[in-house]
Amino acid sequence: MTQRLTYAMIGGGIGAFIGEVHRRAISLDDRARLVAGALSSTPEKSKLSAEQLGLDPDRSYGSYHELFERESKRDDRVDFVSIVTPNDTHYPIAKMALEYGFHVVLDKPATHTSEQALELTDLAERQGLVCCVTYNYTGYPMVRQARAMIESGELGNVRKVYAEYHQGWLANDLEASGQKQAAWRVDPKRAGLGGALGDIGTHAENLIAFVTGLEIRSLQAELNSFVPGRALDDDASVMMRFANGAHGVLTASQICIGEGNGLALRIHGDKGSVWWRQESPDELRVAMLDENPVTYTRGGPGLHEDASISARIPQGHPEGYLEAFGNIYRGAIDAIIAKRDGADPSRMAQLIPSIEDGERGVRFVERCVESAKKNAQIDWA
Amino acid sequence: MTQRLTYAMIGGGIGAFIGEVHRRAISLDDRARLVAGALSSTPEKSKLSAEQLGLDPDRSYGSYHELFERESKRDDRVDFVSIVTPNDTHYPIAKMALEYGFHVVLDKPATHTSEQALELTDLAERQGLVCCVTYNYTGYPMVRQARAMIESGELGNVRKVYAEYHQGWLANDLEASGQKQAAWRVDPKRAGLGGALGDIGTHAENLIAFVTGLEIRSLQAELNSFVPGRALDDDASVMMRFANGAHGVLTASQICIGEGNGLALRIHGDKGSVWWRQESPDELRVAMLDENPVTYTRGGPGLHEDASISARIPQGHPEGYLEAFGNIYRGAIDAIIAKRDGADPSRMAQLIPSIEDGERGVRFVERCVESAKKNAQIDWA
Amino acid sequence: MTQRLTYAMIGGGIGAFIGEVHRRAISLDDRARLVAGALSSTPEKSKLSAEQLGLDPDRSYGSYHELFERESKRDDRVDFVSIVTPNDTHYPIAKMALEYGFHVVLDKPATHTSEQALELTDLAERQGLVCCVTYNYTGYPMVRQARAMIESGELGNVRKVYAEYHQGWLANDLEASGQKQAAWRVDPKRAGLGGALGDIGTHAENLIAFVTGLEIRSLQAELNSFVPGRALDDDASVMMRFANGAHGVLTASQICIGEGNGLALRIHGDKGSVWWRQESPDELRVAMLDENPVTYTRGGPGLHEDASISARIPQGHPEGYLEAFGNIYRGAIDAIIAKRDGADPSRMAQLIPSIEDGERGVRFVERCVESAKKNAQIDWA
Amino acid sequence: MTQRLTYAMIGGGIGAFIGEVHRRAISLDDRARLVAGALSSTPEKSKLSAEQLGLDPDRSYGSYHELFERESKRDDRVDFVSIVTPNDTHYPIAKMALEYGFHVVLDKPATHTSEQALELTDLAERQGLVCCVTYNYTGYPMVRQARAMIESGELGNVRKVYAEYHQGWLANDLEASGQKQAAWRVDPKRAGLGGALGDIGTHAENLIAFVTGLEIRSLQAELNSFVPGRALDDDASVMMRFANGAHGVLTASQICIGEGNGLALRIHGDKGSVWWRQESPDELRVAMLDENPVTYTRGGPGLHEDASISARIPQGHPEGYLEAFGNIYRGAIDAIIAKRDGADPSRMAQLIPSIEDGERGVRFVERCVESAKKNAQIDWA
Repeated sequence: MTQRLTYAMIGGGIGAFIGEVHRRAISLDDRARLVAGALSSTPEKSKLSAEQLGLDPDRSYGSYHELFERESKRDDRVDFVSIVTPNDTHYPIAKMALEYGFHVVLDKPATHTSEQALELTDLAERQGLVCCVTYNYTGYPMVRQARAMIESGELGNVRKVYAEYHQGWLANDLEASGQKQAAWRVDPKRAGLGGALGDIGTHAENLIAFVTGLEIRSLQAELNSFVPGRALDDDASVMMRFANGAHGVLTASQICIGEGNGLALRIHGDKGSVWWRQESPDELRVAMLDENPVTYTRGGPGLHEDASISARIPQGHPEGYLEAFGNIYRGAIDAIIAKRDGADPSRMAQLIPSIEDGERGVRFVERCVESAKKNAQIDWA
Repeated sequence: MTQRLTYAMIGGGIGAFIGEVHRRAISLDDRARLVAGALSSTPEKSKLSAEQLGLDPDRSYGSYHELFERESKRDDRVDFVSIVTPNDTHYPIAKMALEYGFHVVLDKPATHTSEQALELTDLAERQGLVCCVTYNYTGYPMVRQARAMIESGELGNVRKVYAEYHQGWLANDLEASGQKQAAWRVDPKRAGLGGALGDIGTHAENLIAFVTGLEIRSLQAELNSFVPGRALDDDASVMMRFANGAHGVLTASQICIGEGNGLALRIHGDKGSVWWRQESPDELRVAMLDENPVTYTRGGPGLHEDASISARIPQGHPEGYLEAFGNIYRGAIDAIIAKRDGADPSRMAQLIPSIEDGERGVRFVERCVESAKKNAQIDWA
Repeated sequence: MTQRLTYAMIGGGIGAFIGEVHRRAISLDDRARLVAGALSSTPEKSKLSAEQLGLDPDRSYGSYHELFERESKRDDRVDFVSIVTPNDTHYPIAKMALEYGFHVVLDKPATHTSEQALELTDLAERQGLVCCVTYNYTGYPMVRQARAMIESGELGNVRKVYAEYHQGWLANDLEASGQKQAAWRVDPKRAGLGGALGDIGTHAENLIAFVTGLEIRSLQAELNSFVPGRALDDDASVMMRFANGAHGVLTASQICIGEGNGLALRIHGDKGSVWWRQESPDELRVAMLDENPVTYTRGGPGLHEDASISARIPQGHPEGYLEAFGNIYRGAIDAIIAKRDGADPSRMAQLIPSIEDGERGVRFVERCVESAKKNAQIDWA
Repeated sequence: MTQRLTYAMIGGGIGAFIGEVHRRAISLDDRARLVAGALSSTPEKSKLSAEQLGLDPDRSYGSYHELFERESKRDDRVDFVSIVTPNDTHYPIAKMALEYGFHVVLDKPATHTSEQALELTDLAERQGLVCCVTYNYTGYPMVRQARAMIESGELGNVRKVYAEYHQGWLANDLEASGQKQAAWRVDPKRAGLGGALGDIGTHAENLIAFVTGLEIRSLQAELNSFVPGRALDDDASVMMRFANGAHGVLTASQICIGEGNGLALRIHGDKGSVWWRQESPDELRVAMLDENPVTYTRGGPGLHEDASISARIPQGHPEGYLEAFGNIYRGAIDAIIAKRDGADPSRMAQLIPSIEDGERGVRFVERCVESAKKNAQIDWA
């Protein structure tokens, strides 16, 4: 019988964007049920949100402290918690969750500092708990296909990587209008060191690491704040050297009018290349030396297992963002069950981004900001 | 508080493709919970499927007769039934469901004959029940945008319509291998009069009707069975004249190697045109006379309300097939609640395909088959 | 030494569109020099045009009669004539050119009636002269690649062909404004029996024949004149049965707002398929059964010789309409030299459209018009 | 009457790629005739080439020295010379041409050092002669449209520029095979300081300057030689700061397997953005703040004059590389006629790249190489 877990959500109340995304992503596969929550920063909003989501009022808590304390005493305590609060609160909440013995799924970025993330890494390790970070784009089947092709050596040694994440929605001072999503992203207290760099550049960094497995050795970053009055970057460009001799260029910008979620990856090995664009996620263009380019598609022929198991419906019927996000949760749920049962994790479980990935993402932001300030190349370690 | 309904599924047991699609589409919005079922043709498989889906064994029934009889006596009887059995059984099941007073969501094609569909139409009307058919492609937000643009007159009078649905998976005799999806589709007993025509051509017909509102006055069809041994068409071409003087060309084929689900619509009015392709569903290309073409996108600027309310996530994060399918269920659930409460149906509810649409689809197949046999133009009515 | 021929042009004076296209197409390869002409319908305009084009005033003639008579007496008489006059004058001019012993390159459509074209065919045969028709789209390298793939059996038996040529520039009554290009095309006296059908539908017909080699056995056409006041069709739809059992759908329309020169071809065999679009002519999409689709490109790997010899510059640097047109002239010049020298024609020469192709195009229009009038299926022969 | 000039070509003999491109580009408009040449490095090959090209043997010279000396004494001396020799000989040949009073069209890169280019700039100025450099991509109509939109302020202040030129043909050591085009490009003596940087990076640099008018203030470059044994870069990445505060990222690489001539430009202003790709040159994607993106096309509505006058055929019939190259020559010929006649240069003449542009391109390579060596940011001036 398929196992259904239960979970609690911290954050994600009425009007929150990413919380609803997490819930839909989980619902899609119907393998975990939301049964508890500390959904908003105020008790009133929390209660209202809980009602809308059909939670038992008993399990709608006023704060995460209360949630952990009371849930941990229940026989039917939730199996895991999903943390979708603003960035600045990730660390204390995740820490407490782990301390109380709950598996954690953490929205990205993991924490404000890489030290905090390292601490969570150690804590999860000691507690024997799953602590993963929803770098959701790694859930796309064709991203996993690209990864598998590189891992298997089909593209040869990777030489050059282009990763970009371009958006246009912060091209003017949307934050002045009080738009909620814009407001916290441009506020260093809530967003952390990085603006575009942290918000979307880390997705690009994560995708490079996930797909290529390359390790950054040094980097040079240039950051801009084009919209007057912004304390954080709204545009970032980074050149990177990897341990294997490969070179990378990563750009992340939120002032590119006309771009929606222009996350794209191009990887060139000495035997072949792949191209992937988030806005057409079901396709992977592949070119081998001296051959015509081939278009692989989700559900199509010739895929690695990692891509095949990550699809739900046949070729030609599009899957999208929620399905990819759902794959992170499928893996997380598998991982949690495996931990609980002392079993080997499934392949889906092995593919999910860990808190170590989260730590690397935060470090990436720190290194880029340092490089940009010094206007100099910076070593990674 | 958001209302959650309960539903039963007829068909859709282990290994069934479309049943799982329906369940995922419903789960996405978490507004209805599967609590009962007659999931397979044999009691053993039904039981196993029910177990996997976490149904209460008491509500896993051995047959749809049993389901309707016993559910109808419960205080907590299901709000609606979702019928996802092979085509040839739609009619008796839907009829009994309606007779027992259950709202019905019926997989397409509605029935085997247009007479059966008319009977269901009348029955649903008399019983005051919702009976809708999952022509799921009408759930795509940009299809609804196209519809709204035509309804509002932006494209002027429609002159020419090109609709196509091309697949390649039946290019050879896959049915000989025993592949389940192929086997029933090429079997007249189970599939009905139409092969490609019924299976996918009806989706194209439905899309034309939904988007343009045009009524077919006459048509001329040519059908082919390219793969030796097939009793039904695997390729259909239809020219149509509409009541307003417009002309249409519809092609549906399952022998187009390299096509996945190549459903596409092009509509040319005397003021402007729109282009839509199911495999890139988030985009609608629009060209007005003497102007450069504009690309509208789901979540982007300038959309009609019907498109806006049909999206879940922002522009640039792809939505796909399941989300569109989910929109049919959002509308169906709204419609059922409105019926129950005697309230006006929501906009989402108004947009769903009815059993009348289902009847027109079956009639379309009948007319095409007649035209092809006579090798002559046939009047619609 | 590369041979340079000389030619005369009939028509193509100041302001004529297609004459300039022919001259540029010839110039591109610099293998023939314009030295004589009867460029316009009036002596004054002819003289002015000749001056602009740098012709020797002695060889600027007042009429085509004069041109043939006087050129035929010169020692350095032109090697061939290029006829780019309005459709209705093609036949008498080409006939006289052949009678005077000149090779002929004729703009399409060859003639007004298929009988005229047959007569030219016979005459050219008797005279031992080249008489070819500029169905220019056959000059695209990737069209030739598609042809070679089918000829070599790579796609297996062709089952289904979709050809379309959609334009939008006649969506309203442009002819009312006196626009020259529009005016003659909607005038039966000058354009012949077909409107969109003759003007662009014949290009689609020719492309099918060139690429697949299939012969039409019967057809059913529906023609529309959407813009009020038009005597000829501005929209045509044709279903065709071929001698080998294949089926085709051809649509040609000039009322599709937003379409420029949307000529496209899709061919589905029982082993594989190809897709080609004139507006991205350097690419040919190819899909073989159960394999991922491959994109062949002009200048890229794996091409047949017919495609390779038809390209001038390397992969990734686009070639376009003029280059394709130039390929027709490269072949025509090769053919003329071979005729003159009694040598075997080069491969380029073998690929050019003949007056027989022209005859078939005119017959196609005649058959379609007959079918549309009778509202019935018509046999080809 | 349209004026026809005469020209001589230095280099471009049998088997030379770029010489033939220049000749075809000129032929397309038939406004200049090749009448003299020093076509190859050896007299025999020169003679053979001259014969093939139909030159008068008297005007086929054994060396450029001879050509300039003897042509300069003829009454019918050529109007200009086109220099298409290997990079290392550009400077002495162009210098002598200008000294002898010939207008010069110079293949890019102008010279080996920026000092040489400055010297040619001064010399051309003093002699009152045209000296232009064939940065041919500026000839594309839609590149000119992008330029005009920025110049007119439609996109607002430019903030971010992404330019890239990616090729794959040097992904392995093709030079080892003796392939001529590869061999000189990887040889510092013949190619100069830059490999991919000089060969194609300069095209990207030129495109930025042409389209945006921005001036580089500082830059940071990283160069790689991925293929073992290469003395020059085969991969270059550059971050740039412009005088107006804008930021740019330019990448040029010849090891990107699967890329043909992937030259692309994306420009983001504070009012709008444009996207252009050389491999689909007839399209320009334009997005204005809070509006849906619009696709402008060559020959389509709403174009600036600079784009309109640069097209030869209507919308939907593709133009390509040779047509764009031809536009440089159209402008050069206009400029030469205007110089000769003391008239104002036409708009086409004003748009051509000058030797100043050539100088900036060479300086760009010098600065990037210096930055890469120092691993530091370098000021432009």
